[in-house]
Amino acid sequence: MTAHAHRIIAVDTYDIRFPTSRELDGSDAMNPDPDYSAAYVVLRTDVGDGLEGHGFTFTIGRGNDIQVAAIDALRPHLLGRSVQELCADPGSLNRDLIGDSQLRWLGPEKGVMHMAIGAVVNAVWDLTAKQAGQPLWRLLAHAEPEWLVSQVDFRYIADAFTPEEALALLHAGRHGLAERETLLLERGYPGYTTSPGWLGYSDEKLTWLAQQAVADGFTQIKLKVGADLADDLRRLRNARAAVGDGVRIAVDANQRWNVGEAIDWTNALAEYSPHWIEEPTSPDDILGHAAVRKGVAPVKVATGEHVQNRIVFKQLLQADALDVLQIDAARVGGVNENLAILLLAAKFGVPVCPHAGGVGLCELVQHLSMFDYLALSGTTEDRVIEYVDHLHEHFAAPVEIRDGHYAAPLTPGFSATMHAGSISSFRYPDGAFWAADLAGAEDAL
Amino acid sequence: MTAHAHRIIAVDTYDIRFPTSRELDGSDAMNPDPDYSAAYVVLRTDVGDGLEGHGFTFTIGRGNDIQVAAIDALRPHLLGRSVQELCADPGSLNRDLIGDSQLRWLGPEKGVMHMAIGAVVNAVWDLTAKQAGQPLWRLLAHAEPEWLVSQVDFRYIADAFTPEEALALLHAGRHGLAERETLLLERGYPGYTTSPGWLGYSDEKLTWLAQQAVADGFTQIKLKVGADLADDLRRLRNARAAVGDGVRIAVDANQRWNVGEAIDWTNALAEYSPHWIEEPTSPDDILGHAAVRKGVAPVKVATGEHVQNRIVFKQLLQADALDVLQIDAARVGGVNENLAILLLAAKFGVPVCPHAGGVGLCELVQHLSMFDYLALSGTTEDRVIEYVDHLHEHFAAPVEIRDGHYAAPLTPGFSATMHAGSISSFRYPDGAFWAADLAGAEDAL
Repeated sequence: MTAHAHRIIAVDTYDIRFPTSRELDGSDAMNPDPDYSAAYVVLRTDVGDGLEGHGFTFTIGRGNDIQVAAIDALRPHLLGRSVQELCADPGSLNRDLIGDSQLRWLGPEKGVMHMAIGAVVNAVWDLTAKQAGQPLWRLLAHAEPEWLVSQVDFRYIADAFTPEEALALLHAGRHGLAERETLLLERGYPGYTTSPGWLGYSDEKLTWLAQQAVADGFTQIKLKVGADLADDLRRLRNARAAVGDGVRIAVDANQRWNVGEAIDWTNALAEYSPHWIEEPTSPDDILGHAAVRKGVAPVKVATGEHVQNRIVFKQLLQADALDVLQIDAARVGGVNENLAILLLAAKFGVPVCPHAGGVGLCELVQHLSMFDYLALSGTTEDRVIEYVDHLHEHFAAPVEIRDGHYAAPLTPGFSATMHAGSISSFRYPDGAFWAADLAGAEDAL
Repeated sequence: MTAHAHRIIAVDTYDIRFPTSRELDGSDAMNPDPDYSAAYVVLRTDVGDGLEGHGFTFTIGRGNDIQVAAIDALRPHLLGRSVQELCADPGSLNRDLIGDSQLRWLGPEKGVMHMAIGAVVNAVWDLTAKQAGQPLWRLLAHAEPEWLVSQVDFRYIADAFTPEEALALLHAGRHGLAERETLLLERGYPGYTTSPGWLGYSDEKLTWLAQQAVADGFTQIKLKVGADLADDLRRLRNARAAVGDGVRIAVDANQRWNVGEAIDWTNALAEYSPHWIEEPTSPDDILGHAAVRKGVAPVKVATGEHVQNRIVFKQLLQADALDVLQIDAARVGGVNENLAILLLAAKFGVPVCPHAGGVGLCELVQHLSMFDYLALSGTTEDRVIEYVDHLHEHFAAPVEIRDGHYAAPLTPGFSATMHAGSISSFRYPDGAFWAADLAGAEDAL
């Protein structure tokens, strides 16, 4: 570094969409035809080292342009900012973005505006880790506990969890770090696969993919449920027959039910021993999840991919509403808020099993689970990262699955970088793929 | 009507911003410099009667363009739709908008996307009431209970409240309707004023405005608090001296505090007998509000202007977290969701005192409170609509305050229509006001 302070000089945004709805990949009871998409942001600097910060919000098609507009609205907070200060303290940006009082009105801390903050904050962490020459999981796991605590916003969670408690957890987590890191590098972090379970797939495809999942080393699969009970029973029976009793089968209703329905439907599936019921009802319904949990035990209750922020997670934990907490790397306010959520989960003793899939969510969230293992939970027991084999080919450092485990990524950064060719092909509506596709659709009229 | 079905032929949107930050109007502990704004939508038809449906989302400046983009994303659901079917059943549109699975991902049912749905749904209700030649409050109060129930989405609230219970409440509400309507037309609906209480005002301005409020017939005023305790104590003492003991003084922290701070700070203000503490903490913190309510009694707890949807209101009621429920006309999914919230409040016996102010919120929300009085609560005791004397001059049918009461509006519609001249002046950035202002700012550089 010279005495001259280097700056963020550009915040480039892209509306990237993949036509996944054409194969019914990703179809569930609430989302029949998703086109997996990313509102993508690239931070560029004048450092001259060629390093950029990449981040994104995952969406499922329409509205990805709104998400891009929300990221664009954050540009004034970034342009001209010192790269060194930003990477030394990403939390300062996080506070500034959440504290922009005019933009805050659009949430607060939820929905489009909050996901935009998450994309930008994650891009800063990507840049920070690249500059440090470390994969993000390793940077976080070796960071000073005091500094990690300084990255957490305790506003609205201080009644349940204090900075002092966070510090104590992180200091305790240092014991055995080196041994766990060796194990992680050897063995990876356990995954589970949702690939067999999409609602749009035939019974034959489900059976074949479930058998394949076991052959690939997975010890848990997941099935989408909630559209039709008779179908669910048949699909669950087929899946159980395909995988045997030694493999866990989670089921996922994607918010389809009211509280009473959730209890009745889950209990109707109980003979096939589902491991957890995921998103049984609205992600906003803390008390509803607590009631479902009581009503479906011993089936576990899992949720989180649509939980808007740390404040709702705090209450889900306070209300004993969860057996499994599912963080998402790109819905809340980025790494800083996910640190808060991982710390809350550790305090309340609830295992974290991240949501992934979509576009690049596996790539991101593995870093957070690996940090959790190394620095907080100390174990991978009852902890698995979702895996779906979609769209990884578009990433510069795609996840690598070995024997049902996520291999620890070694490439510096947050694994968020998409290939330039993928961006140029799938930019909507003017990328090469969409331009040809939309022209074809017009010709067909 | 002819046999030809008339259609929605245009959905026009406008980014309208008023430079309110220059006078510190609207300044509070979280929002130091709001520029009151509206993401405004006009539905046009081919009926030929000149009637349009107007609606908007209120924002406080930056990000109003994102909100307009979100309304634009809903256009395909409206264009070509039968006007007759739409106005006969606005709930059908409400369900379609909330059910758009790709757009739903951006919430679900919260933040930018949900407020956009609210703007569009409210515009349909404006058109519906205009076509019926009725102010909306009167249309709703005289509507068949069965039809009103059909307008409510019970998803995610059915564990607390069923259609049968809603129907019973509405049938019971029919008794005495005519007498209450006569009283309402004579007397209006009680208001309270926040005009004296903005944080940016001097002590002299506060005292003068508080005395003026009493002279104007208001029996309640509200002060913003939460930035500095010594200031709050002084301002509350001045206000109490100005209004005497017979006038209620509510205080409003605009989400400034954590749970513990909220309890301590409110109790420190108790010697001046605040009537309620509003938004003591995050609007997402149901369990936190319940703890605050226990900790500050007999001061009442009020919240709701930032509560995202019926699901969170349901839980605030289930958790005994509220003494006063504050609906907002333009944050949730429009009239249909506010019907659900008013019905929930009626079932739980919690009085509704709407949030208003901003741009046009007084104009809208009076209709909902008057419906509540006529058809549900049957009383105005302990019920007041917020009043702030900002920006009413931009509306075609501005609210009218007489002796501290909102006069029942008689103009057909939802009172959402802004003057064409106001729209053309305050469109951002190309309206006459902003074009001149931005050119002046450039000249000054």
